[in-house]
Amino acid sequence: MCELLGMSANTPTDICFSFAGLMRRGGRTGPHRDGWGIAFYEGNGSRVFHDPLASAESEIARLISEYSIKSRIVISHIRQANRGRVCLENTHPFTRELWGRSWTFAHNGQLRGIKQYPLRHYRPIGTTDSEYAFCLMLDRIRRRFPQAPRSSRQLRQYIGKLATELGKLGIFNFLLSDSRDLFAYCSTSLCWITRRAPFGPARLIDEDMTVDFKEETTPNDIVTVIATRPLTNNEDWNIMQPGELTVFRQGLPVAV
Amino acid sequence: MCELLGMSANTPTDICFSFAGLMRRGGRTGPHRDGWGIAFYEGNGSRVFHDPLASAESEIARLISEYSIKSRIVISHIRQANRGRVCLENTHPFTRELWGRSWTFAHNGQLRGIKQYPLRHYRPIGTTDSEYAFCLMLDRIRRRFPQAPRSSRQLRQYIGKLATELGKLGIFNFLLSDSRDLFAYCSTSLCWITRRAPFGPARLIDEDMTVDFKEETTPNDIVTVIATRPLTNNEDWNIMQPGELTVFRQGLPVAV
Repeated sequence: MCELLGMSANTPTDICFSFAGLMRRGGRTGPHRDGWGIAFYEGNGSRVFHDPLASAESEIARLISEYSIKSRIVISHIRQANRGRVCLENTHPFTRELWGRSWTFAHNGQLRGIKQYPLRHYRPIGTTDSEYAFCLMLDRIRRRFPQAPRSSRQLRQYIGKLATELGKLGIFNFLLSDSRDLFAYCSTSLCWITRRAPFGPARLIDEDMTVDFKEETTPNDIVTVIATRPLTNNEDWNIMQPGELTVFRQGLPVAV
Repeated sequence: MCELLGMSANTPTDICFSFAGLMRRGGRTGPHRDGWGIAFYEGNGSRVFHDPLASAESEIARLISEYSIKSRIVISHIRQANRGRVCLENTHPFTRELWGRSWTFAHNGQLRGIKQYPLRHYRPIGTTDSEYAFCLMLDRIRRRFPQAPRSSRQLRQYIGKLATELGKLGIFNFLLSDSRDLFAYCSTSLCWITRRAPFGPARLIDEDMTVDFKEETTPNDIVTVIATRPLTNNEDWNIMQPGELTVFRQGLPVAV
């Protein structure tokens, strides 16, 4: 079961998610009874779909699997509730606005004592540790950079610092985006792989999710997929180290 | 053509939208080529669907019309772009968080000079007057009430004051919600009607949208529908006056 799944591409890419397993087990005894959600960036905007209950007849899952959404950045999360009850406002990814950018966040893990940190600008709508941590990070980023920093590296380094600090509270694997970069932080488990055109018929598969690259539009297409664990066993996945932040832009890792 | 459509109910209600006309004309020469969007509140969370292009084969419109979403507050908007290009981030309703509540906003009209007002906490992601006005209102509300006011009437009165002030800049019909109240402000055109169980087979119809009440769950169900203009001509709609704010909670107008 893959809790976090992300994509970064250099051109709007239609990756095709198949939620067959998820939908089949949804609402029964499987580990995914607690729902899932997905955010697609489209231009400067983001589209988020949440399915708190992941019922076996999920209309949302069907829509996502049939609908062609071309996106450069995707963040998806399958939830096993360990903090906060199962409801719409507790379903990842979470979204907020900062500097006129749409930010989204999905987290795998738990953070002990996170709610003792005071919040100023952003408040959680639900009751999860995860949304609280997201609000806290944005609060800190906003305080450190009242305006968007000119240098993306400054922002990346600061996010790395925050991740290290909050990661000490527990397990803090996350995917975060400000609509430009995709930030992937590994606390215990996260990995990624970069594919270039021609993609061929290959697919990334796990028991719940198939990422099926549509035919590329140009020979220059580059797509990176980030996941909790490798989705294939015949390719070289980059296994991230605990405490490592990797930032992706246009489908490739960039300097932090 | 109905640009704004809202619903307030005292129990989660599954109103069924039929976008047959919209979908048929979408992407052609009709007035709806610029897309539409809809927000449903579910508990403390909100779900927003955006369809920037309203293509004739709209998957999103199909999903909404087939999917049973039970909600106490709904805000919907059909766009005719007069400011800002057609894209996801310019599609209503807009959403932001304040006091840990999810706020949504949809606007019909234009506001001259709105972008000369400075913004502090909230910034638009897109380029519309409408999102700018939403950010400005939340900025002002936040400054006036750093914490959520104990009295809902204080908040309602302040929103009425803001609406009057900003309404002077042009046309400012809007629907706004903080997840508790539904605020409807009439600048030039807005009306509402309250229906109580048993709803019977009656339907609200205009050329693009059919609001079809599902069978009530209890005899106490109350639902109010707010629209740019009356959707039926055989019932007594409350026609709002220019400059009037009406606030709905649990399906009924409340004191402002």
